[in-house]
Amino acid sequence: MPSYTAPTRDMHYLLHDVLKVTDQKIPGYDDLEADFTAAILEECGKLNSEVLAPLNTVGDTEGCVLENGVVRTPKGFKEAFDTVREGGWAGLDMPEAFGGQNMPFVMGAATLEMFAASNQAFAMYQGLTHGAASTILAHGSEQQKATYLPKMVSCEWTGTMNLTEPHCGTDLGLMRTKAEPQADGSYRITGQKIFISAGEHDMAENIIHLVLAKIPGGPEGIKGVSLFIVPKVLVAADGSLGERNGVTCGKIEEKMGIHGNATCVMNYDGATGWLLGTEHKGMRAMFTMMNEARIGVGMQGLAQAEVAYQNALAYAKDRLQGRAVTGAENPNGPADPLIVHPDIRRSLMDQKSFTEGARAFLFWGAMLIDRAHRNEDADADGLISLMTPVLKGFLTDRGFDMTVQAQQVFGGHGYVEEWGMSQFVRDARIAMIYEGANGVQALDLVGRKLAADGGKHVMAFFEMVKSFCKENGEDEAMAPFVKPLKQASKDLQAAGMYFMQEGMKSPNAALAGSNDFMHMMGHVCIGLMWARMARASLDALANGTSDPDFHEAKLATARYYMTRQLPATAMHLARIQSGAAPVMDLAADQF
Amino acid sequence: MPSYTAPTRDMHYLLHDVLKVTDQKIPGYDDLEADFTAAILEECGKLNSEVLAPLNTVGDTEGCVLENGVVRTPKGFKEAFDTVREGGWAGLDMPEAFGGQNMPFVMGAATLEMFAASNQAFAMYQGLTHGAASTILAHGSEQQKATYLPKMVSCEWTGTMNLTEPHCGTDLGLMRTKAEPQADGSYRITGQKIFISAGEHDMAENIIHLVLAKIPGGPEGIKGVSLFIVPKVLVAADGSLGERNGVTCGKIEEKMGIHGNATCVMNYDGATGWLLGTEHKGMRAMFTMMNEARIGVGMQGLAQAEVAYQNALAYAKDRLQGRAVTGAENPNGPADPLIVHPDIRRSLMDQKSFTEGARAFLFWGAMLIDRAHRNEDADADGLISLMTPVLKGFLTDRGFDMTVQAQQVFGGHGYVEEWGMSQFVRDARIAMIYEGANGVQALDLVGRKLAADGGKHVMAFFEMVKSFCKENGEDEAMAPFVKPLKQASKDLQAAGMYFMQEGMKSPNAALAGSNDFMHMMGHVCIGLMWARMARASLDALANGTSDPDFHEAKLATARYYMTRQLPATAMHLARIQSGAAPVMDLAADQF
Repeated sequence: MPSYTAPTRDMHYLLHDVLKVTDQKIPGYDDLEADFTAAILEECGKLNSEVLAPLNTVGDTEGCVLENGVVRTPKGFKEAFDTVREGGWAGLDMPEAFGGQNMPFVMGAATLEMFAASNQAFAMYQGLTHGAASTILAHGSEQQKATYLPKMVSCEWTGTMNLTEPHCGTDLGLMRTKAEPQADGSYRITGQKIFISAGEHDMAENIIHLVLAKIPGGPEGIKGVSLFIVPKVLVAADGSLGERNGVTCGKIEEKMGIHGNATCVMNYDGATGWLLGTEHKGMRAMFTMMNEARIGVGMQGLAQAEVAYQNALAYAKDRLQGRAVTGAENPNGPADPLIVHPDIRRSLMDQKSFTEGARAFLFWGAMLIDRAHRNEDADADGLISLMTPVLKGFLTDRGFDMTVQAQQVFGGHGYVEEWGMSQFVRDARIAMIYEGANGVQALDLVGRKLAADGGKHVMAFFEMVKSFCKENGEDEAMAPFVKPLKQASKDLQAAGMYFMQEGMKSPNAALAGSNDFMHMMGHVCIGLMWARMARASLDALANGTSDPDFHEAKLATARYYMTRQLPATAMHLARIQSGAAPVMDLAADQF
Repeated sequence: MPSYTAPTRDMHYLLHDVLKVTDQKIPGYDDLEADFTAAILEECGKLNSEVLAPLNTVGDTEGCVLENGVVRTPKGFKEAFDTVREGGWAGLDMPEAFGGQNMPFVMGAATLEMFAASNQAFAMYQGLTHGAASTILAHGSEQQKATYLPKMVSCEWTGTMNLTEPHCGTDLGLMRTKAEPQADGSYRITGQKIFISAGEHDMAENIIHLVLAKIPGGPEGIKGVSLFIVPKVLVAADGSLGERNGVTCGKIEEKMGIHGNATCVMNYDGATGWLLGTEHKGMRAMFTMMNEARIGVGMQGLAQAEVAYQNALAYAKDRLQGRAVTGAENPNGPADPLIVHPDIRRSLMDQKSFTEGARAFLFWGAMLIDRAHRNEDADADGLISLMTPVLKGFLTDRGFDMTVQAQQVFGGHGYVEEWGMSQFVRDARIAMIYEGANGVQALDLVGRKLAADGGKHVMAFFEMVKSFCKENGEDEAMAPFVKPLKQASKDLQAAGMYFMQEGMKSPNAALAGSNDFMHMMGHVCIGLMWARMARASLDALANGTSDPDFHEAKLATARYYMTRQLPATAMHLARIQSGAAPVMDLAADQF
């Protein structure tokens, strides 16, 4: 059975050596002293490796079962959920007023990675609750907040998001679910929603569904969509639970992975709901949840890659097969461990350089979110808005690839379920799809985010790379990192320029390259992160760190990313510059 | 449920417009007139789309069940196997002396693609039988051939290959299964083999296991391995079935995919076996089977990509979601079909340009095999030997990626099992692993095949590309194909040069780039195939073809591959030229 160990040492490094959180002048960050963050990360790591990781295989094997309208979660999930609740993990970064601990999101992100790695299917129950609570927090009335948030912050009640219908996912303007206003100010919700993660289960006494629906007579299409709170069990004025609402789970989907999470068809048969936020502005409110969820999903890309890598690494050190081509390294054994072989090393370095780089990218993103919220910094808000599709799309595409590589290290043993590597691949696959398929992320990036606020945020990003390169340009030790970063950034700018020039003439010229641009930008972001880590580790070594091995390994891994991954930007640029014609030339009926 | 239609039109094009089989002066090729090949391909296509494809989901859902030592295959498999048998498909390219039809392998390859596409798990039963029969044909005594081949060519008996043991897969020198010589010339085989595909089942009255084992007292390691024929049921001198042999299935593996094929743990408890070929030369004999199997597995990479693409294309034309950014294309419908969106097109073109290019590559490879065998052409034999790891490794890596892309077109529906796209991904995944994991293919290519016969075969390949480019260099219409092919081939040669220079100093400098080289070479091969197809289609158009749409589509798809896929070679070259250091610098305990 696979195992999971929280990468607390690496997280500590990011918080304190790279991001230097206590120097950041972000409200709440002065509390993040090394001892304090270490205590939290260790405690959370322990919970994840000891309680949740062992349930990952159980969840996959047993799955969820629907019987007489009730969904039974896998054995052990309920007790584990109680443990998570008791630890207060779900409300770590939620306001104290509603029972949370008001910690910065950068700490929430660190714990989120652990939950997503140890047991993705399980973590989704609390993750969706967090997202729903954030949405109520941002858009709810005082009464709605008071009614729902305390129970959701503690995870006594869980939450869901209901967007997709059988005939529409991405194109929500086509939705048919309707919400008819009632005399008492509530709405009668009728329709069917599909792919509702954690839509029904036995781990909480109530489930708060956030449901998109159309109020009859409203504007056509996406402009007539509103958001509603539809609790599974109606809540009385005194907060006590009343009648069961008119919402039921009709079916659980059989899926490729995340079997431990119930993906439900939800039927709303005149269920009672309450408007959340403004009439017809449902998409805006839902985007609070979706933006949070997109970063959470990007985290899943990293997290599944991380746990898969840990197990591949252990296997590569343990499994004896063949001899090093440069001479036996385990001469007294029957063979050398797999890790001596160059192509196995190549694969492990791909994985290691991705996971550590992706973690830096996500932690940096989390800090931007804190800066946006806690400092009300509009530039940080613009930058994280630009980065969100990259964090989601690039990290889940690459994260999935890494789970496939990790599985490959096991040879045939990777293909049999017993070793658990197949599950990492199958679970990681969903992250490329949900919360907006990665093609939609690329479209969001190129079609919307690049040009947002007059292109201000992407210019700020280029400026950030440029000034980093300038600051470090004189330092010879930094040359192996600055030079490739500069080149990759130049490629990215050339692609941006191509879009500006050609996209004016034909939007297809930009959109045909959207997927390549998203990947290119992901590489440049991770390249920047590796350059910053190289800087931090060179400084640590210069300052006589007590852990030189750790920092030398960082530098070696940074060099790997620079030489073996960043060259991808030139390929993406060549593809982009070939324009729309190769992609669009063929008529649909010529396929 | 997904469907499958055999790409007979494209196969016809390859055989007659591109390869021009009847002009090839290969014995047996003069029979391959268009009407004749069309009749065979249509018939085989019908069997695959109507009989075997509908059983693909059944096989996945039901899997194989082991009860009291007997393996029950999924419902309908037995009857379908009878149908395949009656059609004589299994012996299509086998000698007439043993009941086959003695057709060239290029025809075998075409039908193989269909079987591997419609139902990979099912096709493996006959595929392994074919491989085992080929091995007996090449290395068996006259008596062994007479005893086993007629029944195996007809598939009344099936075959297996037994290599892997729990502690060794790639490194077979570590194997423990032993073969003790008996007074009657037979051997007593004792040991355990794992991952034995089709090791036990209920579709044939006998199963002929080819088993690698060590004769006690023989040379150490791989040089002391011999190959044995171990039938499940002993065969009497008159060919009648006798006693059950001492071989049993101990367990069926739970796997990620190919559930319809029984992957067995096989226990040999003093089973009776007969030496096949020469003592201690078992690996050489087994390589007859493995080389055939590797090409068959490369075919699976193409085949799963093809069937996944067909279904993704149908969905992209059918599913209405969003509007074309350049204006509605289905103005009377609620939305436009997915295929209008540039990133969906990009994905479909990736898939289409891969599958058609891969098919050309495999058919060309099959022709080389025919030339090697039927003309006893040593150059063709050397070239296909060089290409085998590329056909296996590159086509299965890329084929898997394409199934993932096809699944992605379906959004959330791709992740639920109901639509069948998950199965294509899960089934395609094994092809990267078995018959030598793709890392081993890359090692074989760079560590062995490149330098074989003094590098003669790779030089011949470069020469082939060069002379094609020269022949077509004056034709302006060919410029969009010749120019990128030249550049990609130049990159490949630069990589080969780097290996020659640096690999002398340190083998790691070559092996650290082996995976990149394999991919690079795959791209150049498919690039050459697309250039040849462009030539063929330009000629057809010039000659007033009755199907200009088909040829225009070929040209557009060729342009896509050239502009969007071939630029990958520069990235692979950059990685290769970064050398061994980034890959090998980190000590194992620094990971």
